[in-house]
Amino acid sequence: MKIAIYPGTFDPITNGHIDVLNKASIVFDKIYLAVADHTGKQSMFSLNERVNLCKLSLKDHEKIIVTKFKGLSVDFAMKVGATVMIRGLRAVSDFEYELSLALMNKNLCDELETMFFVPNSKYLYLSSTMIRQVVSLGGKVLDYIPKCVETAIKKKLKGVENE
Amino acid sequence: MKIAIYPGTFDPITNGHIDVLNKASIVFDKIYLAVADHTGKQSMFSLNERVNLCKLSLKDHEKIIVTKFKGLSVDFAMKVGATVMIRGLRAVSDFEYELSLALMNKNLCDELETMFFVPNSKYLYLSSTMIRQVVSLGGKVLDYIPKCVETAIKKKLKGVENE
Amino acid sequence: MKIAIYPGTFDPITNGHIDVLNKASIVFDKIYLAVADHTGKQSMFSLNERVNLCKLSLKDHEKIIVTKFKGLSVDFAMKVGATVMIRGLRAVSDFEYELSLALMNKNLCDELETMFFVPNSKYLYLSSTMIRQVVSLGGKVLDYIPKCVETAIKKKLKGVENE
Amino acid sequence: MKIAIYPGTFDPITNGHIDVLNKASIVFDKIYLAVADHTGKQSMFSLNERVNLCKLSLKDHEKIIVTKFKGLSVDFAMKVGATVMIRGLRAVSDFEYELSLALMNKNLCDELETMFFVPNSKYLYLSSTMIRQVVSLGGKVLDYIPKCVETAIKKKLKGVENE
Amino acid sequence: MKIAIYPGTFDPITNGHIDVLNKASIVFDKIYLAVADHTGKQSMFSLNERVNLCKLSLKDHEKIIVTKFKGLSVDFAMKVGATVMIRGLRAVSDFEYELSLALMNKNLCDELETMFFVPNSKYLYLSSTMIRQVVSLGGKVLDYIPKCVETAIKKKLKGVENE
Amino acid sequence: MKIAIYPGTFDPITNGHIDVLNKASIVFDKIYLAVADHTGKQSMFSLNERVNLCKLSLKDHEKIIVTKFKGLSVDFAMKVGATVMIRGLRAVSDFEYELSLALMNKNLCDELETMFFVPNSKYLYLSSTMIRQVVSLGGKVLDYIPKCVETAIKKKLKGVENE
Repeated sequence: MKIAIYPGTFDPITNGHIDVLNKASIVFDKIYLAVADHTGKQSMFSLNERVNLCKLSLKDHEKIIVTKFKGLSVDFAMKVGATVMIRGLRAVSDFEYELSLALMNKNLCDELETMFFVPNSKYLYLSSTMIRQVVSLGGKVLDYIPKCVETAIKKKLKGVENE
Repeated sequence: MKIAIYPGTFDPITNGHIDVLNKASIVFDKIYLAVADHTGKQSMFSLNERVNLCKLSLKDHEKIIVTKFKGLSVDFAMKVGATVMIRGLRAVSDFEYELSLALMNKNLCDELETMFFVPNSKYLYLSSTMIRQVVSLGGKVLDYIPKCVETAIKKKLKGVENE
Repeated sequence: MKIAIYPGTFDPITNGHIDVLNKASIVFDKIYLAVADHTGKQSMFSLNERVNLCKLSLKDHEKIIVTKFKGLSVDFAMKVGATVMIRGLRAVSDFEYELSLALMNKNLCDELETMFFVPNSKYLYLSSTMIRQVVSLGGKVLDYIPKCVETAIKKKLKGVENE
Repeated sequence: MKIAIYPGTFDPITNGHIDVLNKASIVFDKIYLAVADHTGKQSMFSLNERVNLCKLSLKDHEKIIVTKFKGLSVDFAMKVGATVMIRGLRAVSDFEYELSLALMNKNLCDELETMFFVPNSKYLYLSSTMIRQVVSLGGKVLDYIPKCVETAIKKKLKGVENE
Repeated sequence: MKIAIYPGTFDPITNGHIDVLNKASIVFDKIYLAVADHTGKQSMFSLNERVNLCKLSLKDHEKIIVTKFKGLSVDFAMKVGATVMIRGLRAVSDFEYELSLALMNKNLCDELETMFFVPNSKYLYLSSTMIRQVVSLGGKVLDYIPKCVETAIKKKLKGVENE
Repeated sequence: MKIAIYPGTFDPITNGHIDVLNKASIVFDKIYLAVADHTGKQSMFSLNERVNLCKLSLKDHEKIIVTKFKGLSVDFAMKVGATVMIRGLRAVSDFEYELSLALMNKNLCDELETMFFVPNSKYLYLSSTMIRQVVSLGGKVLDYIPKCVETAIKKKLKGVENE
């Protein structure tokens, strides 16, 4: 059985992430969407909120298991028996960061390979950061996020807790 | 069974290509290394020479089938039942060309996905063009190419036909 | 009256070019689509064929005048009274070339400014080179080129002269 | 009448911004220099200080109206009847961010086009961030900023409020 | 006597930095490794800790003088009689930042030139930021840092002060 | 004595090259400007013409020795006792090519280091290719090339042999 992990902060999950997962589903039997505890910055959604939004958005994907993790993504990959780490590639700036990450991860864990997917051209320059920025200024981004994420953002902006 | 193609001109095959194939072997049951007929430029080796050097370099890889092809790589992929096209990613300039190719191929054939691998840092900036250039000026590149390719290049420079 | 030129080789014109022209039409009263005599490489279509395909593709755009030119684009711009040169921006590699061109043109002619437009995300990585390459290998690219260009390419591949 | 907006944080305005405005003035009848309320980070100057420095620096430009705005720049553009958003392009990293912004803005508001200008080579790598950094370490940057901005920075470093 | 400075935050010093210093040692008689007081962000190690780790890591390099500095690096260079500033170049994103810095420094001090070195391919994508990130998540990076830095990080993570 | 080589095709030499040489002169006692025999493409000037234009342009630089070379630049460097190879860095696309070259050269010859200089912002995007292109279309580029190169190009365009 071919197992992969797809780690990230998913703050929040976008249609670009789902597009990458759909592409990866062709190859893998099981994919752990691994939501990182730490985000390195102030997140819009809490860890549990982020996990729940991923679960809701992907509830019909049988191959995908949404889970949280702590520590290094390579350690989590080993724990669940994954041999591949999936990453989406968008822009050039993205690419260099991903390259350095892939090389570091290879150094940390030789048994794990990184595989990259390019999303649909519609999502090529889409990022969670951009989504948060536009939404916080009142913009509509429904083409770029699942329905449940839209609802969660609206609640969040009104100060309602998402569970 | 998971089948992929790895198309290219392989003029000649380098250790960077072989590194990408090794990484891809983790995921796929069969990989067609597809040597393109056209190279878009004057090639150092003929199509048959390029195919033979790939076969020699990869003779111990059971999952890999070396073959030549004509026309669009997506058409060849469909013919052999591949669902994924494998590509190596090196530098930023590479990345943009690969991105445009992946988007065009997606447009030409919706059932085929492109998957990218980053080679070992040692091969990050390695290209067949660089190999040909250095060798033609008398440089040694043995760390970067299989033994049989080295022999073939030496013969080629002495004007001996490789078969 | 605000006049611009949009110089290029247009070998052949694509929907990406037309998208840029549509965007520029918001600002300018007259736009000279200036087809360069020299292409710096072997062109697929002759100068007259390229001009004719542009005329056919843009026959309903009242603001656009298709014309050929020789020499420097800045000299042509001065001749027709243009104050702005329009350029499309696609990828990063594109950007740097365009940047060096804009700086050189500014040096050659201080009265002319360069203005850049980004095409629709669908055409972001589209180029005439890619079109020629895919078509010559038998691929279909109808989403990316006007109908008349498609017909011309088909004729061209059958060896029929386009007029 | 052709109206454009030129949104930004202008913290502080530099000669690079003014260069872009001069270039854009060739094409537009009215340009709203729109100073964003939010800066996404701790700003050196307050919103009012930033607006005032822009006004002082541009007081002889009849076509330019300095104003502050809140929310999305596309909404502000619609409010003032602008059909074009002006942006300066400096480096490659800049370019990708600007590209993603232009695509998002197109999605948010189909009637607004983004137009890019490249500043004079002298200002190619100039940014407000660099100016703030150098000045805070005691460096002189008079070639890169208007006289009034220089004075304001000096006051600011002495702890005097700018009004 | 040829004197250079190599400024940075060195939080902490990595084998990539040491590789650059080794290369620069071929050309210069004396190199000031200048540890910047300000880091622009929350640093992992204090200024004194950073200086001490540099000293320990480079104690056998006779040409290198480790020192702290405040203010502009160009001013420090002038003070110690350096005519060249040394910088390492890694990725493309790095390159643009370094380019803007070199141009600004040239403007601040015409007598100082910037010289760039590319580290060994093993360290091409190595950064102090990546080191801090991986270590804080429990990863091992011994290939990339001197032994004394490893010890210091371990102490730091246990809450022990490094002196 | 510190010796460097500055290899290239110099077809023709530009003010950007001379700027790089001036910067390098601060550090080195002797610099071999090494004009490559092969250009990899059709050159505008013959090898002897290129050497002569370099000699004329640099006749007052005592530290610089203009010479032609054949084969690998690292071999030439060893022959003349150089420990450093000088290269100019302009744009990002340049940077990646230079990076791959520096890594390959390090592999070919471990005793030689590559050192990069960034030219004055005026010459940042200047290239011999751009010069040839503009001149062949009738443009004036006197700010970018030495007087003797200008004369040589004019002669060349009239069909007169340069010696």
